[in-house]
Amino acid sequence: MKVDGRHFRSIWLEDDGWTVGAIDQRRLPHEFVVARIASAADATEAIHSMLVRGAPLIGATAAYGMALAMRTDASDAALDRAYAMLLAARPTAINLKWALDEMARLLRPLPASERVAAAYQRASEIAEEDVAINQGIGRHGLALIEQIAATKQPGEPINILTHCNAGWLATVDWGTATAPIYLAHDSGLKVHVWVDETRPRNQGASLTAWELGHHGVPHTVISDNTGGHLMQHRMVDLAIVGTDRVAANGDVCNKIGTYLKALAAHDNGVPFYVALPSPTIDFSIDDGIRQIPIEQRSTEEVATMTGRTADGRVETVRVVPDGSPVANYAFDVTPARLVTGLITERGLLRPERAALASAFPERGAGH
Amino acid sequence: MKVDGRHFRSIWLEDDGWTVGAIDQRRLPHEFVVARIASAADATEAIHSMLVRGAPLIGATAAYGMALAMRTDASDAALDRAYAMLLAARPTAINLKWALDEMARLLRPLPASERVAAAYQRASEIAEEDVAINQGIGRHGLALIEQIAATKQPGEPINILTHCNAGWLATVDWGTATAPIYLAHDSGLKVHVWVDETRPRNQGASLTAWELGHHGVPHTVISDNTGGHLMQHRMVDLAIVGTDRVAANGDVCNKIGTYLKALAAHDNGVPFYVALPSPTIDFSIDDGIRQIPIEQRSTEEVATMTGRTADGRVETVRVVPDGSPVANYAFDVTPARLVTGLITERGLLRPERAALASAFPERGAGH
Repeated sequence: MKVDGRHFRSIWLEDDGWTVGAIDQRRLPHEFVVARIASAADATEAIHSMLVRGAPLIGATAAYGMALAMRTDASDAALDRAYAMLLAARPTAINLKWALDEMARLLRPLPASERVAAAYQRASEIAEEDVAINQGIGRHGLALIEQIAATKQPGEPINILTHCNAGWLATVDWGTATAPIYLAHDSGLKVHVWVDETRPRNQGASLTAWELGHHGVPHTVISDNTGGHLMQHRMVDLAIVGTDRVAANGDVCNKIGTYLKALAAHDNGVPFYVALPSPTIDFSIDDGIRQIPIEQRSTEEVATMTGRTADGRVETVRVVPDGSPVANYAFDVTPARLVTGLITERGLLRPERAALASAFPERGAGH
Repeated sequence: MKVDGRHFRSIWLEDDGWTVGAIDQRRLPHEFVVARIASAADATEAIHSMLVRGAPLIGATAAYGMALAMRTDASDAALDRAYAMLLAARPTAINLKWALDEMARLLRPLPASERVAAAYQRASEIAEEDVAINQGIGRHGLALIEQIAATKQPGEPINILTHCNAGWLATVDWGTATAPIYLAHDSGLKVHVWVDETRPRNQGASLTAWELGHHGVPHTVISDNTGGHLMQHRMVDLAIVGTDRVAANGDVCNKIGTYLKALAAHDNGVPFYVALPSPTIDFSIDDGIRQIPIEQRSTEEVATMTGRTADGRVETVRVVPDGSPVANYAFDVTPARLVTGLITERGLLRPERAALASAFPERGAGH
């Protein structure tokens, strides 16, 4: 999508043909900085430090990380080391494992001499497939927005709430939750997005607001506490969020706080949709609430906040008293019963095993 | 309660016999500063700027504000002016109107020459009454905590979640939601408090964590997004929050985000209690969701965050991109159906008109 009028993706192969460029998302919205990823260790660190984040982008970054690893050492041992190192960078991200398995399955049977070229080729395909998937999600989600638009008076906006950043910055392009929004906006529908700040890392305020603003989509940033009140007063027509992992039973693991918004949507009859590329479905998990491990991240993320001072410096300030303990659960699981539907590249699905298995027989049938 | 081992209230009459001291809560937790309130205008500004906040403390501050106004000019016109000025400082706070009405009813029949002394006397009584009320709330809430403690294994903590600051800083002393917690802790029960950060003003991280820490109560600060996950995983035994206004039907207006926690509590069978002094009940409001006006505050509260840098400076940083609109709804209303019970100075009440009117016949019967 657009940044200052110029088209960008979140990750790309540089003109040198081997290093990888990516937007450093830790610096947004205050600074627009492009990072250079030149080794599997760089890719691991980029994932771990959240220079890149978002399930699909993590997958693409991991795929390029495997390609970079092969370029240094194309042996089986190096392949195994890179796989293990990259996998450990973010335990919750199912796309990470998916992309790494995809790369390993492709590379392992090949002679070492062919692995580098094959790895770069496949990493590029994974990136392109993500763009195509998100365009598919966008088309299916657009139909939902068009249905709501048909119930509105002329000039009345369609109010969509989203949590965290499942935008183009979280993918290679278009985003998952935002793909229907960008398509609706580009097609002339009057959409307005309520952007949850998304503490502790503020991906909503920092990233979603930034990308919507650069693309010209009307939006308003709110504290995470606000969505329930808005839904209670009919100020939200639709909620669309992304996800890091969907269990086979339709339970949705996403950024901490998603569950609270799903409860409020359910309580107020607001449709609550989850947009996802199919690699996000984990058919090996039967019960999302009980089985999906929840990453606990650094307490500094809660205890501090980073932003820009009035005179333009980027500063990190502590907002918790010295000596007060802090906990940082990074994700929660929304039970399938609170999810109106899953927006996938193959259409809208009910959040239940039969629907998922039927739409993705090549993945779900084996279980 | 205790600050650095010394007993403090949140507001007091200074030794000069006429100025009023108060803890400047905007500076916490980074600096402990006492403010001097020497006029009705000072009191108005203290309420408006949230130097003092919390329904009962606002009431006490307004009462002292009326006394200060009388000291300058004890005429009827001055009384009316002070009443109007103080009332406009915070539209949502029912205790503000209650305290001002109480003062006006007392002062108006008196000759101007008697108003100053009577006003100081009544303001002091209002402060003492608040302390007594909170001790009553504490005793009734303690019984709830003791019931939960009886179900625990030895050494297992009782986990209590609270939102915003309904602590002693929000009252004259003891707090409302915290009174049962302080009593339980002081009586040797092993309580642990999950403290919601409470964006946008961070009263949980700034004030509740600070006061619990100074009193030695174990606690953990969490982002506002976290409570649902904790309840889903049986890590919360009980939620207790305060309130700015309770409608006659039991609907509870409190800091934005309270509704989301009540939904999560209800979804997980966690008891959700609201602690309140009876002046917080507004018998003139039949339907809290439809009738209680919701204050919208400055968007800067959402767009920025104030904290302490690593080298000790207090800085305000912007966390929202330039050009992104922001909305700041300060309160929400939790429907009575999600409230397990109201903890008042006259005992536990069901959140419904009959129970409230029966417990407070002198206030509810007239409607």
